[in-house]
Amino acid sequence: MTDFSHINEQGRAKMVDITEKKVTSRTAVARSSIIVNQEIYQKIMDHKIGKGDVLSVAQVAGIMAAKQTSNIIPMCHPLPLSGVNIHFDWNVEEDKHELLITVEAKTQGSTGVEMEALTAASITALTVYDMCKAVDKGMIIGSTYLLEKTGGKSGTYKREDFR
Amino acid sequence: MTDFSHINEQGRAKMVDITEKKVTSRTAVARSSIIVNQEIYQKIMDHKIGKGDVLSVAQVAGIMAAKQTSNIIPMCHPLPLSGVNIHFDWNVEEDKHELLITVEAKTQGSTGVEMEALTAASITALTVYDMCKAVDKGMIIGSTYLLEKTGGKSGTYKREDFR
Amino acid sequence: MTDFSHINEQGRAKMVDITEKKVTSRTAVARSSIIVNQEIYQKIMDHKIGKGDVLSVAQVAGIMAAKQTSNIIPMCHPLPLSGVNIHFDWNVEEDKHELLITVEAKTQGSTGVEMEALTAASITALTVYDMCKAVDKGMIIGSTYLLEKTGGKSGTYKREDFR
Amino acid sequence: MTDFSHINEQGRAKMVDITEKKVTSRTAVARSSIIVNQEIYQKIMDHKIGKGDVLSVAQVAGIMAAKQTSNIIPMCHPLPLSGVNIHFDWNVEEDKHELLITVEAKTQGSTGVEMEALTAASITALTVYDMCKAVDKGMIIGSTYLLEKTGGKSGTYKREDFR
Amino acid sequence: MTDFSHINEQGRAKMVDITEKKVTSRTAVARSSIIVNQEIYQKIMDHKIGKGDVLSVAQVAGIMAAKQTSNIIPMCHPLPLSGVNIHFDWNVEEDKHELLITVEAKTQGSTGVEMEALTAASITALTVYDMCKAVDKGMIIGSTYLLEKTGGKSGTYKREDFR
Amino acid sequence: MTDFSHINEQGRAKMVDITEKKVTSRTAVARSSIIVNQEIYQKIMDHKIGKGDVLSVAQVAGIMAAKQTSNIIPMCHPLPLSGVNIHFDWNVEEDKHELLITVEAKTQGSTGVEMEALTAASITALTVYDMCKAVDKGMIIGSTYLLEKTGGKSGTYKREDFR
Repeated sequence: MTDFSHINEQGRAKMVDITEKKVTSRTAVARSSIIVNQEIYQKIMDHKIGKGDVLSVAQVAGIMAAKQTSNIIPMCHPLPLSGVNIHFDWNVEEDKHELLITVEAKTQGSTGVEMEALTAASITALTVYDMCKAVDKGMIIGSTYLLEKTGGKSGTYKREDFR
Repeated sequence: MTDFSHINEQGRAKMVDITEKKVTSRTAVARSSIIVNQEIYQKIMDHKIGKGDVLSVAQVAGIMAAKQTSNIIPMCHPLPLSGVNIHFDWNVEEDKHELLITVEAKTQGSTGVEMEALTAASITALTVYDMCKAVDKGMIIGSTYLLEKTGGKSGTYKREDFR
Repeated sequence: MTDFSHINEQGRAKMVDITEKKVTSRTAVARSSIIVNQEIYQKIMDHKIGKGDVLSVAQVAGIMAAKQTSNIIPMCHPLPLSGVNIHFDWNVEEDKHELLITVEAKTQGSTGVEMEALTAASITALTVYDMCKAVDKGMIIGSTYLLEKTGGKSGTYKREDFR
Repeated sequence: MTDFSHINEQGRAKMVDITEKKVTSRTAVARSSIIVNQEIYQKIMDHKIGKGDVLSVAQVAGIMAAKQTSNIIPMCHPLPLSGVNIHFDWNVEEDKHELLITVEAKTQGSTGVEMEALTAASITALTVYDMCKAVDKGMIIGSTYLLEKTGGKSGTYKREDFR
Repeated sequence: MTDFSHINEQGRAKMVDITEKKVTSRTAVARSSIIVNQEIYQKIMDHKIGKGDVLSVAQVAGIMAAKQTSNIIPMCHPLPLSGVNIHFDWNVEEDKHELLITVEAKTQGSTGVEMEALTAASITALTVYDMCKAVDKGMIIGSTYLLEKTGGKSGTYKREDFR
Repeated sequence: MTDFSHINEQGRAKMVDITEKKVTSRTAVARSSIIVNQEIYQKIMDHKIGKGDVLSVAQVAGIMAAKQTSNIIPMCHPLPLSGVNIHFDWNVEEDKHELLITVEAKTQGSTGVEMEALTAASITALTVYDMCKAVDKGMIIGSTYLLEKTGGKSGTYKREDFR
C-alpha cells in the first residue's frame, strides 16, 4: 500500500519535497458540469448569441482560478502554468440541460497539473451557478473528476468509464 | 421570466448594485462529497484516529476558501462572513465510500452567502482529492448543491429531494 | 493648506483612522481609455459580434480588480463594494481608434470609492492591452482620471473640463 | 475553564459564529522588535536621513499585512479595518541595537483587531530582516505580543509587565 | 494579419499555450505619469527631503503589483520575476507638474514581462493619486505605454516617438 | 561594508536583479516559538490526542504562508517552493510551556528560501495565538530567527548559539 504523501513523521501534513523531481512537460484534463433548468438554458443560449454571455465570465473565472490553485489548496505546489483551455458542451436530453465543462491545463514543471485542471473546472461551474442563481437556486453541479493526465514519473492516466 | 441579474445595459456582465438592499442575518448550507476507494477510506480513517488527518487540512482549506469567495467568483460581492462550520459524514455501502461534506455559512450582510457555502464545499472536496491522489487518481467529487438558505428578500429556500 | 492625510507623526505613511467617519452611500465614476490601431479595432469589433470578445474579458478583470483595490493600493481602506458597472464607447476619428472605459463604483461605507473606480478603469485598459499585444505593442493607455464622486463629508465632485 | 472557541462538535476547527456579536469600536496595540548588529543599525540610520529607507518599506508591508490578516490566519474573521499606525523606536544599549515596532489597529466591527495588530508587527519585523539580510543573517526577531486592546464584550486588556 | 492569440476554437478566451516556448532572458520598460497641481508637487518634494515620502510608498506598491500581475490580468502567465526597478523624474514646466514613472522588469522565462512593467507603472501612479487625493481630486494619470522590450521570439521592440 | 541590496540609485527600494544568479538547490530552517500558560498547554495536548487539534490548523497556516511570502514581503522574489515541513516540540519547565516551531523550506531556485521559512514560522505561531486567545491573551511569541541555510553563492550558514 502506498503511503499518503502529505503526512510528515509527526503524523501531520506537510508540503512534500519535490526538489529532486524532474522538470517535464505535463498535462491534465478535468471535467465538471452544471445541470440547469430549461429557463436558464434558454437564457444562456440567447445571451451567447448576443455579446454578453455567462459562459465567457465563467471561463475567465476558471482560468484565473487555475493560477490561484496553489494558494487555495493547502499542500499543492506552486508551478508555472503554461496554458489553460476551457471548453463547453451542452448535453441536452428531454428536460435535462447539462453544461459539460472540460479544462485542459499544461505546465513544464516538476509536479503534475491535475489540481489546476480540477480547480478550474469547479470554479467555472460555481461561476455559472452564481450568475444564474437569481433565476433558480436548484441548479446542481455534477461530478468533477480527472479525465486524463500525461507526464511525470507516474506517466499517463486515462479514465476509461467516462467521456 | 426573471432577468439575469448580472448583465448590464450593454449586454455585458456587471456586479449588481446592492447598495439599497437591507442588512439582515443570512445563512446558507451547501453540500458536496467525494467518493474514494476502500484503501483511501481506510487510510483516512486510520489517520483520523492518530493526530494527523486529511479531513482537518481539508476543513481549513474550505474555511479559508469561504473567505476568498468574492476574489474567486467574478460577480460575487464581498461580505463580512460571520461564521463557517464544516461537517463530515461517511456514507459507506458495500464497495462505495462517500465522504459527505456539509458547509454552513453565516453573515450579517446585504446579500446572501450561498456562494461562500458552495465554494467552501467544493474546495474542501478538492483538498481531499489533492491529499489522497498519490494513492488513486480515480476519486470522483460528487454533486455539489445548495441545501438551504435563509434571510434576505427572497427568504428561505429548502431543497426537498436531498439530504 | 490641507495636510497629507497618510503621513503619521514620525513622518511615515499610515492608514488613516476613519473609525469615526459616517457610513453613507457613496459613488465614484472614473475614466480611462486605450488607443489601438485599425487592425486591432477591426478584430475587437468582429469578435464582439461573435461569442468571444476581448471586451468581456477586460470587463471581468476590471470588476475583479475593483474588489482587490485595498490589497493593491497600500493605504486604501477595505470597503464593502456594493456595485461596479463598466461601459465601453468607441471614439473613432480618421485613423484614431480610442476605446473609452467608464467605471461606476458604489458602496455603503465610511470612505469613498474613488480608488476602486480608478483601479478598475486602469486594469480594464491593461487587460485590453494584454489581449491585443500580439498584434501591436504600440497601443497607448490614455489619461485616467476621476469624472465624478458623490457622498461623504467632502460631498460631490464633478470634473468640468472632460466628458 | 473556558473552551477553545474554534473547535466544532466533531472536534475540528471552525470559524466561530459572531453573527450576534455587537458592532463596537475596537482597538489593539501589538509589539514586536528586531535586534540587528551595529553595521545594520548604522546603515538603516543613514538611509533614514536620505530619501530611501528600510523602515518605510517595512511599514508599508506591515500595513498591507494587516489588511490580509483574515486571508493568512485560517480562523480569523474578515473585518473592516478602519486605521493602522506603526511606530518605530530604537532601543540602543552598548552593542545591542533593537528596533521596537509598535502597531495600533482599529475597527468598527463585531470582533477584535488583535490578530491584525500582531500580524502587522510580525510582517514589519520580517521585512526589516529581508531588506538587511545581505549584510547579516544573524538578526533576531524579538518577542511579539499584545500590549493592549479595547472594546468588545471582554473589554479592556492591558499588559502590565511590559512597555 | 496575425490572429488574436487569446481566443480558442470556440471563440472564447484561453490562456495561450507557451509550453514549447524557450526560456530566455527578457526585459521590459514601461512608462506612466501623473500630473499634479503646484501644492501637491511642493508637498511631495518637501516630504521627500524628510524621512516619509509619497514616492517610496508608491514604489513599494508598484513592485508588489508587478508580482501580482498574473493574478490581476486574466490571460497573463505566471512568471518568475527576477528584478523590478522604478524611477521617478519630475517634468516641471510653468504650471504643469508631471511625475514621470519608469519601470524596468526582468525575468528568465518563456514569455515576456511587458504586462508586469505596465501594471507596476499604473499601480505606482494610482498610489500617488491615493496618497494625495485629500489635497486635490483633479490629478490626471498620463499616458501609459511600453517603451522597450528585449528577449523572446519577437525580439527587441523600441518605441521611437517617445522618451 | 556590504551595501544594502534593496536600494536603487535614487536611494529607493527595488527588487534586486537576480536574472544572472544560478538555479541551485537551496534549503532554509527557521525557528519561532510561542509561550502559553498551563491551561492552554493542557488543552492543546488533549485535543491533539483527539481528532481536532490547534497544531494541525497552525501547520496548514504556516505552509500556506510560505507560499504567499513573495506577496507579503515587498522586495522578496517569487520562487518555486519545492517543499515545506513544520515540526513542533514542547519545551516544558516548571510553569513555562513553550511550543517550539521549526520550519524547513526547500527550492530549486535562483534565490534563497530564508524568508519563506521565517514567514511560515511566524504565521504558525500567530495562528496558535489566534486559536487560543479566548483562553488567555497574554501568550508571547518568542524569538524568531534563521537556524540554517544551504545553497546559493553565499553557501551554508549555521547559527551556533541556538538549537
